[in-house]
Amino acid sequence: MPDSIVARYALSCPAAELAKAARAVAVEQTVEVPESLITPDIEARVVAKVLDAVPAKDGGPHQVAISYDAALSGWELPRLLNLVYGNVSIQTGIRLVGLELPASFLSRFKGPNFGVAGLRRRLRVPRRPLLATALKPNGASTEEFERLASDFARAGGDLLKDDQNLCDQGLAGFAERVRRVQAAVTEANARTGGHTLYCPILCGPADELEGRVEAALGAGAEGILVPPFLLGLDSVRLLAKKHRIVLMAHPSFTGTFFSDRTHGMTPGLLLGTLFRLAGCDVSIFPNPGGRFGFSGAECAELSARLRGPLGSLAPAFPAPAGGMTFARLPDMARDYGADSVFLVGGGLLEHSKSVYDGTRAFLDAIDELVS
Amino acid sequence: MPDSIVARYALSCPAAELAKAARAVAVEQTVEVPESLITPDIEARVVAKVLDAVPAKDGGPHQVAISYDAALSGWELPRLLNLVYGNVSIQTGIRLVGLELPASFLSRFKGPNFGVAGLRRRLRVPRRPLLATALKPNGASTEEFERLASDFARAGGDLLKDDQNLCDQGLAGFAERVRRVQAAVTEANARTGGHTLYCPILCGPADELEGRVEAALGAGAEGILVPPFLLGLDSVRLLAKKHRIVLMAHPSFTGTFFSDRTHGMTPGLLLGTLFRLAGCDVSIFPNPGGRFGFSGAECAELSARLRGPLGSLAPAFPAPAGGMTFARLPDMARDYGADSVFLVGGGLLEHSKSVYDGTRAFLDAIDELVS
Repeated sequence: MPDSIVARYALSCPAAELAKAARAVAVEQTVEVPESLITPDIEARVVAKVLDAVPAKDGGPHQVAISYDAALSGWELPRLLNLVYGNVSIQTGIRLVGLELPASFLSRFKGPNFGVAGLRRRLRVPRRPLLATALKPNGASTEEFERLASDFARAGGDLLKDDQNLCDQGLAGFAERVRRVQAAVTEANARTGGHTLYCPILCGPADELEGRVEAALGAGAEGILVPPFLLGLDSVRLLAKKHRIVLMAHPSFTGTFFSDRTHGMTPGLLLGTLFRLAGCDVSIFPNPGGRFGFSGAECAELSARLRGPLGSLAPAFPAPAGGMTFARLPDMARDYGADSVFLVGGGLLEHSKSVYDGTRAFLDAIDELVS
Repeated sequence: MPDSIVARYALSCPAAELAKAARAVAVEQTVEVPESLITPDIEARVVAKVLDAVPAKDGGPHQVAISYDAALSGWELPRLLNLVYGNVSIQTGIRLVGLELPASFLSRFKGPNFGVAGLRRRLRVPRRPLLATALKPNGASTEEFERLASDFARAGGDLLKDDQNLCDQGLAGFAERVRRVQAAVTEANARTGGHTLYCPILCGPADELEGRVEAALGAGAEGILVPPFLLGLDSVRLLAKKHRIVLMAHPSFTGTFFSDRTHGMTPGLLLGTLFRLAGCDVSIFPNPGGRFGFSGAECAELSARLRGPLGSLAPAFPAPAGGMTFARLPDMARDYGADSVFLVGGGLLEHSKSVYDGTRAFLDAIDELVS
């Protein structure tokens, strides 16, 4: 009996056509030929098996489990994506809602380099939620970013990331800006005995990624912000494999997988399971009530997939973000608990006269919430 | 006046909120801060400009043009994706329907290595549509693939590609299978004086891509099949830059960008403009009437974006596929004209007793259609 990858789909089709629709997914994703060309041998060895296909009682989407021979994944991320959602992505009414990966698959993945426990050790924050902010707005001068970085670090903020829109002109521009911002953070840390960690954005041509990581490391940065769907998910895994560096993941360009709740996949699978497999220590996503439309249940599933059991991979931090404010902190503490990162960008910049005061106010409030 | 990238969006919102919705896109994609934090200087230098936002007369989605300073793209693909569709992908009712790239951007891209004219020269097919097929079904033995490859090549087929589901076990398995299939094609070409070109699938770990390309080239292959959204779009551009090799692009994992017609982007922009920018010579997509839901108008737009003017980039071939049959050939010839690739997989395998006879029948029919 070969190891199996079990994918669960919610299929939107008439109940009478469910068996046919489930079989169509199994065939499309493995052999992609007319039924007449499927020999008994290929049926037995290659075609995915429909484990169960029970019509929903309420007429809603039907839950179907499909079992793939894990060898068809090649034990790697690009083929896993292809296997469970490659071609059917181009159809409609097929939403990936669950994914069970066998130990033989998971054991090939290193996962987060730091994870929840490792990042807490590095930041010397044993139990409260972490506070993160972003260098913004795009277009501010490097002097302004140095000041923001210094204020946030002096006030004891945990994670400072670039806004994902920041666009340095080439590798040289990136290296110079990161060097200056990191120097501001390092100096502030030295002054206060703090441990603020800076994650510059890594988004650039494929042939420049390594150079940029080297530049960031050379400047003393210990983390990077990566947008896996702009760089390629497996390119991110390779970065995590090569460099012992904190990876914060940004969800840019992933949204069409979630916007239609009858198709695509759950945010938990993509921003949770897949990003964690690729080695992300922190996964940023839009908290309900901001400018984006994730539901509370979706964010809870995402947090569970980041922090729950996944082979021997370290748990990763959920980082709710997107229009968060001071007033939302109690809700966020209740919804996400301590092992989370509260990423507050504009809301922190707007809160007080200075970034230092805003950061202190947020940290005090967080301390109070979990004390 | 800096060079501009003009993106056109179809926004689904009440007409009375259109101006606000358009402004929200412009702010989200460039500075991502509350309006109160946008200084006049940043407004002038960084925030995208809403060029026009005219409510639709029929209540349908409203067409809006937004102009970005091209420098915000970093003149590269990952940032271009982030700039025109990164964060808004996570919202709803925002569909990218047009993209005008200035010469200063396009001139940084090499585009297809062969394009329509170059691939025609290589294949010695001056004017008719090209015939392509796939090595399938997944799970067949290498002997069966050798026979299929030999039959297709001896009959004069143009492009032979791997099924994108084929999953070799590691680099060694890939190298061995490609060597044998390419040998079958080379021998058939030598026997008939033909020019069939074989494109093995390149889908694997990021740290193995170069090794696989080298193995394919070493085996004598002159093309590869790439799934840009599994590998990362810019990783594909890098392959095209490094290797003078025919690139066929497969749309695996792209479909959520199209399934909801009020969000995402047009197939023409993604599988056309973006894949051509990355250097793909052929772009495979689902023809209407098969197992997938693209409309005739969408396929026409896609063909136009592959073959129409795009700086000095060579035109690329549209390759309609997905459940195509012999009976559909007249429609395909009418819809796509001569500069196209008819990709027939299962339909060709099913058509005749032998792949040789099927290939001959399809080629004869194609010749007749364009004579």
